[in-house]
Amino acid sequence: MTVLDNISYSEALELCLKNAKPKKTHQNIYINEALNRVLAEDIIAKRNSPVFTNSAMDGFAFKHSSDKKLKVIKTIYAGDKYEDFEIKEGECVRIMTGARVPNGLDTVIPIEKCEEVTDEYIMIPEIKKGANVRIKGEEIAKGDVLIKKGERITPEIIAMLVSQGIVNVPVYTKLKIAVLSTGNELKEPWESADEEEIYNVNSYAIEALLKKFGFSADIIGLIPDSLEKTVEYIKTLKNEYDVIITSGGISFGDADFLFEAFKQNGLKEFFHGIMVKPGRPTMAGIMGETFVFAMPGNPLSSYINTFALAIPTLKKLSGADKYYFQSITAVNKSDFKVNAKKDHTILGYYENGEWEVYNGYKYGSGMLTPLIKSNSLMLLNKGKDLIKKGEILKIIPFDAGFGKNKFTFN
Amino acid sequence: MTVLDNISYSEALELCLKNAKPKKTHQNIYINEALNRVLAEDIIAKRNSPVFTNSAMDGFAFKHSSDKKLKVIKTIYAGDKYEDFEIKEGECVRIMTGARVPNGLDTVIPIEKCEEVTDEYIMIPEIKKGANVRIKGEEIAKGDVLIKKGERITPEIIAMLVSQGIVNVPVYTKLKIAVLSTGNELKEPWESADEEEIYNVNSYAIEALLKKFGFSADIIGLIPDSLEKTVEYIKTLKNEYDVIITSGGISFGDADFLFEAFKQNGLKEFFHGIMVKPGRPTMAGIMGETFVFAMPGNPLSSYINTFALAIPTLKKLSGADKYYFQSITAVNKSDFKVNAKKDHTILGYYENGEWEVYNGYKYGSGMLTPLIKSNSLMLLNKGKDLIKKGEILKIIPFDAGFGKNKFTFN
Repeated sequence: MTVLDNISYSEALELCLKNAKPKKTHQNIYINEALNRVLAEDIIAKRNSPVFTNSAMDGFAFKHSSDKKLKVIKTIYAGDKYEDFEIKEGECVRIMTGARVPNGLDTVIPIEKCEEVTDEYIMIPEIKKGANVRIKGEEIAKGDVLIKKGERITPEIIAMLVSQGIVNVPVYTKLKIAVLSTGNELKEPWESADEEEIYNVNSYAIEALLKKFGFSADIIGLIPDSLEKTVEYIKTLKNEYDVIITSGGISFGDADFLFEAFKQNGLKEFFHGIMVKPGRPTMAGIMGETFVFAMPGNPLSSYINTFALAIPTLKKLSGADKYYFQSITAVNKSDFKVNAKKDHTILGYYENGEWEVYNGYKYGSGMLTPLIKSNSLMLLNKGKDLIKKGEILKIIPFDAGFGKNKFTFN
Repeated sequence: MTVLDNISYSEALELCLKNAKPKKTHQNIYINEALNRVLAEDIIAKRNSPVFTNSAMDGFAFKHSSDKKLKVIKTIYAGDKYEDFEIKEGECVRIMTGARVPNGLDTVIPIEKCEEVTDEYIMIPEIKKGANVRIKGEEIAKGDVLIKKGERITPEIIAMLVSQGIVNVPVYTKLKIAVLSTGNELKEPWESADEEEIYNVNSYAIEALLKKFGFSADIIGLIPDSLEKTVEYIKTLKNEYDVIITSGGISFGDADFLFEAFKQNGLKEFFHGIMVKPGRPTMAGIMGETFVFAMPGNPLSSYINTFALAIPTLKKLSGADKYYFQSITAVNKSDFKVNAKKDHTILGYYENGEWEVYNGYKYGSGMLTPLIKSNSLMLLNKGKDLIKKGEILKIIPFDAGFGKNKFTFN
């Protein structure tokens, strides 16, 4: 009898990532559809920024020299149509913030720094040549790489693209993801169920989690209840989808023919079993062109492993070059014990620089309450049996952002 | 001449929040549309969890007594259809994890803790009554409040709702938000522009930022170039939208008739001007039933104030009871100077528990590069002129999540 692998959680993640080859297919989309998509080519700046040399202050623009008294010959407002004009030694112009600095002038002195200001002339102190002038192209020069291939498009990047008049962007095509689950005894949520029958939570939870991270998935339904039918069913999905995510039926029990059905369809698994609590019965592999994740049947473990293993992998598959979760640093709020022989994925609550494990790490993987009462995950390598109060931990938030507590300013 | 207010940034935020009255209108939606919507009523548990009393381990179930030797009379698997049967003193059943514990039995001993195990009987040590048994309803009891009104629906909450067979949920109706901007000199991004003409960045950036936080908005276009036309235009939007967000034209310059047009439509402003750098010319108020934000024309300030002031307010307007940004704690990486007379909204980069201000806080509010090179915002009250290396700061991430650096486990 085959037994489950005992690889570590970090190895499992690395195996997924190593085998995740970004999509090759591109498309051009309009910018209002572009949020969260991944750039498939470098974007080159079409325009300089600033587009013209302009004043950073309300003040007076002049050619830097040793003159202290300057005659004010005209006023230039932001938005004024530029017309060249002659300006002589000892002359200056009144200029507003953002207004174009006339050709030949190089320095701006703000009004409040002048020693004297009348309608006709100003008296100025020493000032550095070039002060308060924003030079054309100093932020962005035409032809520069503006945004690199592999960047996920954020609202900030949309602002940048629009400022350049770039409205069509080359992105990787979206991943096609199928979500399905095992368990013919499970009821679909719209079905009526006896008090003791159990609903099929996983497909809906996985789909919502993918959606939260900008992916979309088709909920395909339940895997049939025989090996023969399952082999046929998997065959119809293979190569139709970039990714298949299943839940349940991946231990080596009697009715767990899902793995066998994948194998008969050419699956090469990267691992099948992780030495982690919770979520041991987890498998990942490749079947033709299709990346396969088999998550545990248990909703808590299925959720955690989809979050911690599948999401980074999907990021990489979708072409993003930033795919590792970035941790935040927190002080552990109270002692708790763990089994030193296993890795652990532990739920807890982050607030104000501190992190507290959910219920002293005493919760069942059959529960969902730990998930809705937590906002973050702590990934722990094996080897320790006690996590001490005051230890610095690295935390991955999964539902941070907003709270009821008033935000206090620095 | 009217001058801008000088209220603090935190006051501005509190004024917005105090005046943001959550929507009163509800609707029922299907769960696959429910992600990020806000619950308009408490959700009551329809089912117990666990749905029946079951075993937490593979082992033997028995009625707690002083017997040390127990006869094994049958085996119960998870998913077995339950049938009542008689069990006598000194008898036990073999039971699998998740299988229903027969009526009358109360304790489970895991196989590995038995002193002796044969096919017919087991020898057991002392064990606490109730051990390894999950009691029906111990996690969730039918009739409990499962999720409170005002909660935003996360993937975790979707898992919980599905586990209860709840597929229709009462949510607040979506906010109707109009985004418009001033500046007839601006080019729309799809228009061709001379090298020196400037694109209308704000509407697109604001719309993308709202979308990122789960809102949707209509980009309405440009505000007309006369007071009379603007008054009429604003009148058509008033009460049609829950929220109007404009950008630009809200200082007290010659062409800034936007404020006047709002006033003629009945605007009561909460503030008009904040003593903050950048983003001073900012206004918020109420006009009939419509909440109005007027953001600065400057893309950087407009983005920051939409993020830090409008997003929490929109959260509250949409019915959410968690609407304050939650900060993360970080150590400041290098000294930088600020003007002690103003509040500041400062861009920087958070990584591994440390935060570094963007370019020593030397950047212009006409730039967009600081925004795409940063991932977080630091809100600072006035009063300090130096932020020292090593200080503990509270940071609001706006683009945290994923990075190129490998995630290292605890």
